Amino acid sequence: MTMRPPAEAGDSLQDVDTPALVVDLDSLERNLDRMARAVADTGARLRPHAKSHKCPEIALKQIAAGAIGVCCQKVSEAEAMAEGGIDNILVSNEVVGRPKLDRLAALSRKAWIAVCADDAGNVDALEAAAGRADTVLNVLVEIDVGAGRCGVPPGEPAVVLARRIAGHSRLRFGGLQAYHGRAQHIRAHDERRRAVEGAAELTRQTVALLAEGGLECGIVGGAGTGTYAFEAMSGVYNELQPGSYIFMDGDYGRNLGADGAPFDEFEQSLFVYATVMSRPAPDRALVDAGLKAFAVDSGLPAVHGFADVECVGASDEHGLLAITGAGDGFGVGDKVRLVPGHCDPTVNLYDWLVGVRRGAVECLWPVTARGAVL
Amino acid sequence: MTMRPPAEAGDSLQDVDTPALVVDLDSLERNLDRMARAVADTGARLRPHAKSHKCPEIALKQIAAGAIGVCCQKVSEAEAMAEGGIDNILVSNEVVGRPKLDRLAALSRKAWIAVCADDAGNVDALEAAAGRADTVLNVLVEIDVGAGRCGVPPGEPAVVLARRIAGHSRLRFGGLQAYHGRAQHIRAHDERRRAVEGAAELTRQTVALLAEGGLECGIVGGAGTGTYAFEAMSGVYNELQPGSYIFMDGDYGRNLGADGAPFDEFEQSLFVYATVMSRPAPDRALVDAGLKAFAVDSGLPAVHGFADVECVGASDEHGLLAITGAGDGFGVGDKVRLVPGHCDPTVNLYDWLVGVRRGAVECLWPVTARGAVL
Repeated sequence: MTMRPPAEAGDSLQDVDTPALVVDLDSLERNLDRMARAVADTGARLRPHAKSHKCPEIALKQIAAGAIGVCCQKVSEAEAMAEGGIDNILVSNEVVGRPKLDRLAALSRKAWIAVCADDAGNVDALEAAAGRADTVLNVLVEIDVGAGRCGVPPGEPAVVLARRIAGHSRLRFGGLQAYHGRAQHIRAHDERRRAVEGAAELTRQTVALLAEGGLECGIVGGAGTGTYAFEAMSGVYNELQPGSYIFMDGDYGRNLGADGAPFDEFEQSLFVYATVMSRPAPDRALVDAGLKAFAVDSGLPAVHGFADVECVGASDEHGLLAITGAGDGFGVGDKVRLVPGHCDPTVNLYDWLVGVRRGAVECLWPVTARGAVL
Repeated sequence: MTMRPPAEAGDSLQDVDTPALVVDLDSLERNLDRMARAVADTGARLRPHAKSHKCPEIALKQIAAGAIGVCCQKVSEAEAMAEGGIDNILVSNEVVGRPKLDRLAALSRKAWIAVCADDAGNVDALEAAAGRADTVLNVLVEIDVGAGRCGVPPGEPAVVLARRIAGHSRLRFGGLQAYHGRAQHIRAHDERRRAVEGAAELTRQTVALLAEGGLECGIVGGAGTGTYAFEAMSGVYNELQPGSYIFMDGDYGRNLGADGAPFDEFEQSLFVYATVMSRPAPDRALVDAGLKAFAVDSGLPAVHGFADVECVGASDEHGLLAITGAGDGFGVGDKVRLVPGHCDPTVNLYDWLVGVRRGAVECLWPVTARGAVL
């Protein structure tokens, strides 16, 4: 059930079969370097999120550039990363249910594994799974610092849960997970900064309260591509978990920097390469990429390099382009690059990442954790 | 890169690991029977669309129930179906680019294959590919009967393209593809009917014009789950291509029948099975299924069987449920069934379909054409 690769190393970009997930390697490498340098100055550690790329080759590049390991969101994703040679993995999420807990515990015998919890019963289930596997699990308490998703409230409830973890013989209290997901796509720079300052203050108070109780936070983790600089400056977060920065997407492209201009610290390196399959009218073209080739939760893709061509609709296998200009380059068989609205769920649709440098295919990377929902 | 199955035959539904794509086999079989019986009375042939299920096991059941073959939307999807034993396939879409054309031509040596075209250059490319493979391809002219997607205008332009096909030595003119995609989800029954009556009239005129020129339409194809009864009644369509009827989804569930009540001819058989992974507040629960576990292009999923629980948000790996009632059954570890908004791109996220009957897992079907975008 793995699809054939859409290209071979040495092919020209023009020869890549479509739709295909294409990554510009020069841009990817510059993004890797920029993040590594930006974080190196802060004293915080970089633990990029592998849910964005699901690709051990990229995780290894991140580690080579200074990251201490990766985050995963699912046990099956962590298994794919461990198989790919990553030996330091934080599952930045709750893991529920015996099959997954047993797999997580088994994995902790092969790699350094930490996991998050926000529920007393789940903590006890983690202890039981660690016992069955004769292992030890590092457990972070997730606190809700404004995302309105998982997590116990900051402060005393976090201390209560941390004590429960520390009181178990097979569990080690590993610190706090304090990710402010909602803040990532607040468009205005100062508003985004204030949201993270609020999260950091709640986190700081919780860290202090835990320390009073003798519970040290090895990891204080959070941050994404939209806010990582603020968490890094906070002095309380010591691990940063951005994922999208390697690829970027339409949604992050709509964030604004300090100067009010579009956030451009990282380059768009990820594209859905598509072919014009029909040109029924001068003002309309159809490409062979639709809802199974890009995620639309953050809007339709942009057509790269064409200000007068807009993707205005998508069905299962078609993308509908509205052409207001001359429309050159949109004949049947012409190929175009689309910028997906949201990189993570788009990458998850593909078995292969086609690495391209200056118009030639350099590598094919398997998206090993594609479909790793368990 | 194929994910492990989330269950084994004989497991109880409760033991299925999540998120998982679960199909109620009793409902699926009733849907298969209902469509087969509804079409049998009309004289039209049933050629269900495999883009919905991407699963040869289900295609074989459709054929056993009277379908003459399947539609596919992609060459790689057609290859998966042919490998799974389906020998009569209409690619109800344009195929562009030499790699795909050569694969299509190669496939036509193993199964009866037809394909659509709406462009003279593409017709010539089909001829060339058929020549390279020393085979013959059946080619339908796609006409735009209101969908605003691919297709030449009905009438004379269709005749011109059909003549071009018929004039090639390796191509056979196979008829018309006249699918009205936009009509499928028009909510009001009479409005839906009128849209298809308009499409049928344009199709009828084109068939007549072709006949005047000595070009007979072996296939006049179109129709989906929302409108198939109207095309069947038209007297001009002779092949019906519904796909979603086997599963149904939230979007089709919002269509209305002739009596103004929700369209309920087919049963919801497809669910995303999910686990409550966090219950941070009485009015909020998180499930372990998000943007990588269901498509949201037609809205967020519904929570099956709970009128007072609503899915109000989704991020990559989380679904956010708002609970207005007592919230029993939404503790950490409890499992729920979600009804996806759109079945086709949801199925495309999974490697396995878990077939369940009366609470027990009966079979695991591979979604063989998952990710078949090429």
